[in-house]
Amino acid sequence: MQTIAETSMMGGTHRVFRHDSTATQCSMDWALFTPEQGQPDSVLIFLSGLTCTWENAATKAGAQAAAAQHNMAIVFPDTSPRGADVANSNDYWLGQGAGFYLTATQAPWAPHFAMDRYITEELPMLINTALDMDISANGMGITGHSMGGHGALTLAMKHPHLFRSVSAFSPISSAMESGWGQNVLPAYLGDDKAAHQAHDATALMASHGWGGDMLVDQGLADDFLDEHLKPHLLAKAAENAGIPLTLRQHAGYDHSYYFVASFMADHVAWHASRLTAS
Amino acid sequence: MQTIAETSMMGGTHRVFRHDSTATQCSMDWALFTPEQGQPDSVLIFLSGLTCTWENAATKAGAQAAAAQHNMAIVFPDTSPRGADVANSNDYWLGQGAGFYLTATQAPWAPHFAMDRYITEELPMLINTALDMDISANGMGITGHSMGGHGALTLAMKHPHLFRSVSAFSPISSAMESGWGQNVLPAYLGDDKAAHQAHDATALMASHGWGGDMLVDQGLADDFLDEHLKPHLLAKAAENAGIPLTLRQHAGYDHSYYFVASFMADHVAWHASRLTAS
Repeated sequence: MQTIAETSMMGGTHRVFRHDSTATQCSMDWALFTPEQGQPDSVLIFLSGLTCTWENAATKAGAQAAAAQHNMAIVFPDTSPRGADVANSNDYWLGQGAGFYLTATQAPWAPHFAMDRYITEELPMLINTALDMDISANGMGITGHSMGGHGALTLAMKHPHLFRSVSAFSPISSAMESGWGQNVLPAYLGDDKAAHQAHDATALMASHGWGGDMLVDQGLADDFLDEHLKPHLLAKAAENAGIPLTLRQHAGYDHSYYFVASFMADHVAWHASRLTAS
Repeated sequence: MQTIAETSMMGGTHRVFRHDSTATQCSMDWALFTPEQGQPDSVLIFLSGLTCTWENAATKAGAQAAAAQHNMAIVFPDTSPRGADVANSNDYWLGQGAGFYLTATQAPWAPHFAMDRYITEELPMLINTALDMDISANGMGITGHSMGGHGALTLAMKHPHLFRSVSAFSPISSAMESGWGQNVLPAYLGDDKAAHQAHDATALMASHGWGGDMLVDQGLADDFLDEHLKPHLLAKAAENAGIPLTLRQHAGYDHSYYFVASFMADHVAWHASRLTAS
């Protein structure tokens, strides 16, 4: 793992790493903010949305300012495999920049698109190396925006020993009921409905549940709200499953990082309190 | 003046405006953050650097989070005239994206490059309209990054009735001693040294001075420090002129918005205390 960029920020350090991924079979970049003390009290992964790389959240979300106050490290992975050898499409919701945090079984995606394994199997080891600590002791928090909110919710419910806290910003609340998801799930996974359900946050509320609470923020001026995000489905499933989900809906806020940055400090504090409460 | 984008953020409102500029004779965009109460207690202009538009600072600097805490409005202008009819160059330090906050007298720049008049004559009226208030009563603060730091320092010293507080992030401290400036000043202004001095922050310290104090932050891992920025020239000139300049130099910090965002809250608080102390 190479360090390809490094600078001080917020009293801590921002670094960008590059490595050959076994999960995605290509070169991957990810960014890490380490607070001033070096050994953080907690670690939070931020999963980005469609078209993003690690850079959108690292530059626009204001996460590091909040993390510095809580002695928290923040991890910013990429959203998909990338490269000339990696399949792609002309649609922004499919292919490079649109990994959907799943393992594709269908051609031409199967050889590289395995972002769930990348995040849950490979990245934790890389984080251990970069931080020189064993994050399995305390676990991590996970959050994300849009497709990354979908990723945070679904990966947390399926990997509760790895993720001890979960929140989301304007997540795709049900991939199966999302316009994006309805295009993407068959392309990556074929027509097997059980495979689709395994990557649907609303379905996972019933099948897997979650042992803690959840925080979701949603802007009500979000152009993708009705067709792609549908937080009411998640809220209903949480209610049915008895999972304490706080869904905050904000009038006037859109889908941009202006929205994410507006509530990031709340999410960082929320994760910090849960990750350091042991 | 058209509103081309609007969303809530940080409890306030982010808007982007478009208008036909009389100063630059082209269509110009600028962004404004208005805090929750609507009528801000103070107004701060942030001038961006080479290659930037209003968007870099508005999305990456974290200024709005700090401004919201001080009931401050923040104005993000563009860095130059733009458009197919506007002269340009292949060098990133000259032409579109590189207005240098001066009025060009030389061809092919003269018809459009008048960013000093845009910022000091036209923009204040637009701000009054957008905020529905008279900013001449309290004046404004001005700050900026790199070329925008140069702009903030030089415009403040020449327009002290308009700008009541001034600070800068890694400014071009002497345009005449900067590699960028040595290319740009002759192109925009010809060979008249007096014209160059009128746009050199270090020279203006002696010729115009400043009635208050100044805050400058500089990263010591900034790749442009020695060739283009040279804050020691500004510090020496301030000392000679008896102007209380606080120059903070930060080991490990580079020229990026990671640096700007790291110290933005300090600058916003610093301006707020000076602008609301009347």
